[in-house]
Amino acid sequence: MWHGQRDVRIEDVPEPPPPPPGQVKVEVACCGICGTDLHEYLAGPIYIPVDAPHPLTEAQAPLILGHELSGTVVEVGDGVDRVKPGDRVALCPIIGCQKCRWCRSGRMGVCPQVAFLGVSWQWGGFAKYVNVYDYMCYKLPPEVSFEVGALVEPFAATVRAVKRAEIKPDETVSVIGTGPVGLMAVQAAKIAGAKVIAFEPAEKRKELALKCGASAVINPLSQDPIAEIQKRTDGEGSDVVMECAGRGQTGVLAGHVARRVGRVVVMGVFEKPALFDYTDLVYGEKTVMGSMGGYGVFDQAIKMMAKKQFNGEILITGEISLDEIVESGFSALIDHKEENVKILVSPD
Amino acid sequence: MWHGQRDVRIEDVPEPPPPPPGQVKVEVACCGICGTDLHEYLAGPIYIPVDAPHPLTEAQAPLILGHELSGTVVEVGDGVDRVKPGDRVALCPIIGCQKCRWCRSGRMGVCPQVAFLGVSWQWGGFAKYVNVYDYMCYKLPPEVSFEVGALVEPFAATVRAVKRAEIKPDETVSVIGTGPVGLMAVQAAKIAGAKVIAFEPAEKRKELALKCGASAVINPLSQDPIAEIQKRTDGEGSDVVMECAGRGQTGVLAGHVARRVGRVVVMGVFEKPALFDYTDLVYGEKTVMGSMGGYGVFDQAIKMMAKKQFNGEILITGEISLDEIVESGFSALIDHKEENVKILVSPD
Repeated sequence: MWHGQRDVRIEDVPEPPPPPPGQVKVEVACCGICGTDLHEYLAGPIYIPVDAPHPLTEAQAPLILGHELSGTVVEVGDGVDRVKPGDRVALCPIIGCQKCRWCRSGRMGVCPQVAFLGVSWQWGGFAKYVNVYDYMCYKLPPEVSFEVGALVEPFAATVRAVKRAEIKPDETVSVIGTGPVGLMAVQAAKIAGAKVIAFEPAEKRKELALKCGASAVINPLSQDPIAEIQKRTDGEGSDVVMECAGRGQTGVLAGHVARRVGRVVVMGVFEKPALFDYTDLVYGEKTVMGSMGGYGVFDQAIKMMAKKQFNGEILITGEISLDEIVESGFSALIDHKEENVKILVSPD
Repeated sequence: MWHGQRDVRIEDVPEPPPPPPGQVKVEVACCGICGTDLHEYLAGPIYIPVDAPHPLTEAQAPLILGHELSGTVVEVGDGVDRVKPGDRVALCPIIGCQKCRWCRSGRMGVCPQVAFLGVSWQWGGFAKYVNVYDYMCYKLPPEVSFEVGALVEPFAATVRAVKRAEIKPDETVSVIGTGPVGLMAVQAAKIAGAKVIAFEPAEKRKELALKCGASAVINPLSQDPIAEIQKRTDGEGSDVVMECAGRGQTGVLAGHVARRVGRVVVMGVFEKPALFDYTDLVYGEKTVMGSMGGYGVFDQAIKMMAKKQFNGEILITGEISLDEIVESGFSALIDHKEENVKILVSPD
């Protein structure tokens, strides 16, 4: 339960009531800790409503965190036919008003009233049960474990970015930053048929990036990133760059690594405005686009998992229980970030 | 003749030789002073080759400036059938290798070896004659004067930006900065059927922006630009933003003024990397693209001029002779930038 900055408490809370019409109750199997959770823990409130209830959901702190989860449907409200009790599901955390032009045109992620499970909703994944809207549930086939199922949300975000950037087979894709999202982006681009080059200063991440399918890992601090990318692309630069770092100079780097008329897709969340090389954008007629969440491609991401195109197991570096979430979860990810990639939390 | 920073000299130079095969000699009628010329004058060399000859053209400083020009073809080299002596023309300053994938796919502006008339070519528009490649010549119909014809290059750049951003009728387009390019962007967006809102702090430019077709001019320093754009767009923000300022916070402003899933097209040349709000880009799934020059839309721009859809006369605030270029040209534009928009230089 998030109460404030560096104030997350393990508490007994009432079980969610029987789900109202259009909602379902899910028993949580596992829930991954996301960078967003860490941001709220270290520097929040960022997206958590504190001073007033959320305009759409009426949720307000203190709130239960957790939005990357898998579980089993245990009860459904009236009118729900998308899932039934016993279904194993992954959840998309995005909640839209269902009325605006964006919700009605398949872009719920940019609904002006958007809310998120585990951030601005009454329930969160770091708990035994959640109530959610039926449209947030995506069935998991037997080939996808609950553990890997908890990775659907972040992986789908990278699949969406691949789609937004229209990555085509045999294109060269540079992934800036190989945190959890970056490592999933390497895999998503690889599945799309691209040749992937990762940029990452942390030596310990290098082997993992290679295992995820990167053909090379460039250290942008000890090597000349432009010379290195040109060496690998006949002097052209990268067709596409996926920015998954979100800090300091990585936005400028992403633009520079892209070839003329290349595309940069940004997924990294920067804490504040950062530098960008507009002149390079103009003279290279490059394009930079933002991609938010995995809405619209959950089924596709789950299929990639079922076909074992996506390797989730190598990204799971810890499985802990709810009681351990602060010490072995948040603190471990903050203090030993090179060793830890994705830590899953189970309620038992 | 550019010799160095703040060192532009009026000199007698030999007349260009008879044009070699594929080139033509043009007698200059007028040539506009562009922001690029001022940058080279104040802070150059930026694009002028000084230490080594340009790899494609072998041009090297000292060089003749000027790349926004109109004139009359006086002589053609072997193999030229695009124009003939006596043709009135506007010139596209972009010179490409004609061999690379970009030159061969209609994107000569991003040729890795690109050169520019008046910047990295043996001849420039602030002279009586220039030799240029035939493909740089675009015929002017009788309805387009030499004066307005000298505006084809910067105006075409804005027409290209409108095309890049896929501006559609009835969309709201915000133009950030109403210097010469911004005022032409207002007109280009208006011709495309858009409702145009300009952002400009200089009071003296306000009336001109309205005359160019802006329905409102917002002062981003004395007004809240986000509140003002929302007031005019049902709270949505601008469908498209054309960044024509290139300084300080204007990149951040351009992103913020754009609606969700909106497009920003950058034409402004920033002197160095500047701030950008990546998080807003991600959460709004916005797109930012660069647009360079008017290559590919010169004929379209000239047609808009011939049909009097484009009003060039109100942008021409001075016509001077070559002898006056430093005092009444460069210095006037630098020291009195609010009064001056486009100053044309004629060799006589």
